Amino acid sequence: MKVHNSSEKSAPDETCSSCASAQPHNPQKGLPPKATIDVKHVILVLSGKGGVGKSTVSVNLATTLASKGKNTGLLDLDFHGPNIPKMLGIEDQRPAVLANVIEPVHVTGNLSVISMAFLLPDTSTPVIWRGPMKMGAIRQFLTDVNWGALDYLVVDLPPGTGDEALTIAQLAPNVRGAVIVTTPQDVAVMDAIKAAKFIEQLDLPVLGIIENMSGMACPHCGKDISLFGEGGGKKAAEDLGVPYLGAIPLDPAMVRAGDEGRPYILRHADSPAGKAVEKVMENLIAQIEAEQK
Amino acid sequence: MKVHNSSEKSAPDETCSSCASAQPHNPQKGLPPKATIDVKHVILVLSGKGGVGKSTVSVNLATTLASKGKNTGLLDLDFHGPNIPKMLGIEDQRPAVLANVIEPVHVTGNLSVISMAFLLPDTSTPVIWRGPMKMGAIRQFLTDVNWGALDYLVVDLPPGTGDEALTIAQLAPNVRGAVIVTTPQDVAVMDAIKAAKFIEQLDLPVLGIIENMSGMACPHCGKDISLFGEGGGKKAAEDLGVPYLGAIPLDPAMVRAGDEGRPYILRHADSPAGKAVEKVMENLIAQIEAEQK
Repeated sequence: MKVHNSSEKSAPDETCSSCASAQPHNPQKGLPPKATIDVKHVILVLSGKGGVGKSTVSVNLATTLASKGKNTGLLDLDFHGPNIPKMLGIEDQRPAVLANVIEPVHVTGNLSVISMAFLLPDTSTPVIWRGPMKMGAIRQFLTDVNWGALDYLVVDLPPGTGDEALTIAQLAPNVRGAVIVTTPQDVAVMDAIKAAKFIEQLDLPVLGIIENMSGMACPHCGKDISLFGEGGGKKAAEDLGVPYLGAIPLDPAMVRAGDEGRPYILRHADSPAGKAVEKVMENLIAQIEAEQK
Repeated sequence: MKVHNSSEKSAPDETCSSCASAQPHNPQKGLPPKATIDVKHVILVLSGKGGVGKSTVSVNLATTLASKGKNTGLLDLDFHGPNIPKMLGIEDQRPAVLANVIEPVHVTGNLSVISMAFLLPDTSTPVIWRGPMKMGAIRQFLTDVNWGALDYLVVDLPPGTGDEALTIAQLAPNVRGAVIVTTPQDVAVMDAIKAAKFIEQLDLPVLGIIENMSGMACPHCGKDISLFGEGGGKKAAEDLGVPYLGAIPLDPAMVRAGDEGRPYILRHADSPAGKAVEKVMENLIAQIEAEQK
């Protein structure tokens, strides 16, 4: 079996160049043209392994940026598990569509969201799509949505280095890099390193690594519990020579906040986990601003 | 935007029918022909959300079946995060390839494994593949691997209802159904329900739902900690009218077992979590056997 990996870098589209949904190629690079969207900075939130807290990081990053006065869009590209709307308590909303332009759901005056979840009849309907259909949808989510003039677009990706991540990296303009979320568990760190290598192969900077679910305090006795080991995120960042943005402990209140539809950082700013989230977001925003210079 | 979902059921391939990697269609059903593999029962392990413990369930199911004398194959279809080899402590092995036939890695006399991880130069190399390439690879993993005569093939899928899950359901013969893994967390349960609907749309039975990371006992004070809420897996099974196979608590020893490459059930059969895993596997195997009648 022939294994393609890094050789895919410059021509990942060619496996499907004859599809109806394939975009015309840029003849110079063999890549599709960038989508038309007015955004200064696109930030990808990625992981290797699933269930490590990408969506929690995306929601907290977008709400933090918006709270600092930035015009912020949050794009949920997890077609099969689009959980951002539920985490923000807006899962029952539907974007208006006028003359083929989709109006995103506005959480606040300067925070707008688009997710596949808004376009499904109910929360139990699965999206059974192969890659080429996702590619077409991603282009629409960039081009056909009335985002307005965005300072930031935060993109929450499904785990892994497949169609969604490749497509957004190719189609979105001004991609400033990716933040990679992992737990301390060996298998998660191994996959986070793959995700970092993927970002580097796309010639994008890794803005940093966040270690999530980094232990917890027992709610009964207060002692520290090591759930998934410790230090894996920091070690991966050191090995890769990329910024380490900090660790966030597991806090059942954070899980409930997601289930109840309120960004954790807004509700628990004074708890140890809330302070950790705030610190990690500060580090991440500093890193994003450093990349702009 | 036109949203395709259930209408995709009978013709998911048509989005890419002109690709070089597309297989000839079965004119009667519009589906590609089944792959040639000698297996009595193919069992899919699926989730909606990532990081809920699919691979742990797959490894424990395959080792349990093998320990009962069944000839068992374990196929790791998570191309972007192929963690099964590490969890079995065989990540440094490489399958022999002779005359275009791939010899799977043999864990025991009756347990063989194939994973993308075996075909990569190292653990940090990402697989940057779009869907059509994965489809070709899945066919090869079924057809070109010297599995021998298998009683069971356990297929560990990436999260979601995309290319990998669709392709294996179409290409593998004798698919007996899917077991769906979730945590009790609302957003995970919501995605598990999507996964169950997906399986039903493929006219396959849902063998049952497993609730993983269902609380834990504090290692210091011994009191129960609710990490991700509770009861979500059971409620989803009741709502869907599918079997509930039981709950497995989070046990840091289980995480370490995965990181160290030993199936948990073999090492911790006497711990509460070990007993829970054993009970869930018994329920699952009973369900698989019931489906065969």
